[in-house]
Amino acid sequence: MASQSVILTGDRPTGPLHLGHYVGSLRDRVRYQNSYKQFIMLADAQALTDNMDDIDKVHRNVVEVALDYLAVGIDPTKTTVFIQSQIPELAELTFYYLNIVTVARLERNPTVKEEIRLRGFERDIPAGFLTYPASQAADITAFKAGVVPVGEDQIPMIEQTNEIVRRFNRMYNREVLMECKALVPDIGRLPGIDGKAKMSKSLGNTINLGATSAEITAAVKKVYTDPLHLRVEDPGHLEGNIAFTYLDAFDPEKTALAEMKAHYVRGGLGDSIVKKRLDLVLQEMLAPIRARREEFAKDKGQVIQMLKEGTFKAREVAARTADEVKSALGLNYF
Amino acid sequence: MASQSVILTGDRPTGPLHLGHYVGSLRDRVRYQNSYKQFIMLADAQALTDNMDDIDKVHRNVVEVALDYLAVGIDPTKTTVFIQSQIPELAELTFYYLNIVTVARLERNPTVKEEIRLRGFERDIPAGFLTYPASQAADITAFKAGVVPVGEDQIPMIEQTNEIVRRFNRMYNREVLMECKALVPDIGRLPGIDGKAKMSKSLGNTINLGATSAEITAAVKKVYTDPLHLRVEDPGHLEGNIAFTYLDAFDPEKTALAEMKAHYVRGGLGDSIVKKRLDLVLQEMLAPIRARREEFAKDKGQVIQMLKEGTFKAREVAARTADEVKSALGLNYF
Repeated sequence: MASQSVILTGDRPTGPLHLGHYVGSLRDRVRYQNSYKQFIMLADAQALTDNMDDIDKVHRNVVEVALDYLAVGIDPTKTTVFIQSQIPELAELTFYYLNIVTVARLERNPTVKEEIRLRGFERDIPAGFLTYPASQAADITAFKAGVVPVGEDQIPMIEQTNEIVRRFNRMYNREVLMECKALVPDIGRLPGIDGKAKMSKSLGNTINLGATSAEITAAVKKVYTDPLHLRVEDPGHLEGNIAFTYLDAFDPEKTALAEMKAHYVRGGLGDSIVKKRLDLVLQEMLAPIRARREEFAKDKGQVIQMLKEGTFKAREVAARTADEVKSALGLNYF
Repeated sequence: MASQSVILTGDRPTGPLHLGHYVGSLRDRVRYQNSYKQFIMLADAQALTDNMDDIDKVHRNVVEVALDYLAVGIDPTKTTVFIQSQIPELAELTFYYLNIVTVARLERNPTVKEEIRLRGFERDIPAGFLTYPASQAADITAFKAGVVPVGEDQIPMIEQTNEIVRRFNRMYNREVLMECKALVPDIGRLPGIDGKAKMSKSLGNTINLGATSAEITAAVKKVYTDPLHLRVEDPGHLEGNIAFTYLDAFDPEKTALAEMKAHYVRGGLGDSIVKKRLDLVLQEMLAPIRARREEFAKDKGQVIQMLKEGTFKAREVAARTADEVKSALGLNYF
């Protein structure tokens, strides 16, 4: 089946993308675009579910995130980048899927539960937040995506999508919708520079893809290492040592890195040397990304045009699915 | 303000319309179309919120209910009749309104609470059912309806719509959406022929607008009167006597009716005489409606065409509102 090869990914445009996104997804997407029919969604409508009081942030970041995509090598001739809110069919599909998922089932969704807890919503959960799994199911099924790259914590969302798919197909006795597979990246989540489990804008522990050279150096200085490694001659620890976590992720010279690690553990290698190497590695990796980003940023009109064309292409696909769903529901009269 | 004069009404197309609809709304709509800019919505999408397992019923009844409209005198040159599901912008508006209404608030909505109880949903409430007040708010606000005729029990829905309107306008600091007023008809609900408070298809106690002459006579025979009125010479009671409730509603000869009532109360007037009069009154009232219905039913293609044109006109209005709402939310890029 041709649609087996569709892959859908995306981001909530609520801030600039950072190294965590790069490791966790962007780097893979640059590969996927050669082997899959790839759609990348700027999930502005989903971002609004908990940002109705900060709509400017969402609007602004749509173009910023698109610039990040272009900067890392997403190629609009290979990947369809689109803006969620500009495809009304996604809202339509959500609307109908809400009828085949119960409130109790949404409340049991572990991902939603955790996110509600994180946001401190308690009983004041916006209905659109509780129901966003139905919206995700709409996004995924609209494009008949067979593969959806997600973090471990998002697997319940994929399961909920597949439940909706199976229930719909069973109820209307035809294969209108397609189940998808979660694709969990081998590399786990990149920790923040402060050592916290997650690199996240709201925690202020990121290195952004568009960071200047000075910003990178300043961030590297703050990178959490080994608090027990007080003197150069002391043996150092690698576990939880973010400098080495980052070097593992980004340093292309694996042999030299292995030697450096052994030296650190043995004792006699100061943090400043390790950080100098990390600074160099990150500067080399991010310099071309930053340069491409700046180049694309010169002509935002062109970025908007790329998004417009991508959205148009994506809408054709989503509209076809919405038609199929509405026909299955008997909502065809004219 | 021109939009002050917009009125929105509608029906869930789940069965043929009956005398209860006629008294409660249809009769008024025939008047309203001369004094308001009237939109009538065939709420097929809303009907699906609790009919996903009976979609054929909904599909079929869209045209049947449209025929009922035409039969009672709704004039497509004065009233815009449209099909809800064919206007994706209504789903879009619903999608965004869900972000400004909390789950707790939806759960507190007395109308929804009661309807959930009636349907025995318990915890297995479809999410689309719990959230349908947001969908109603979308329908009402899309057309900037200032007036919405509803039964007493639906007033909480109008309040919820106005809450969404005020919240949206306040959040985005402009008058994008318009509050509406509930218009509760003077005449209460028409009871069923069995004396139950509500005439309803599911209770099997209706007289349909398209009923044949024989069906009317059969229904009138079953009309609940006074169980204590055993012999003709006994004094009869008017209270809860459905034959007289219907005569009050439909008999144009009020003086003769008053005399008949006095006679009945005094004693000496048999139920059969009363029912004969009721049969006559209903036959005379429904004969032209049935005739018009049959005439229109001969060319269903023309009915579909009427719905198509109405839907096209309605969609233009709804799309304008959706654009305004999305602009207010910063969801405008191209």
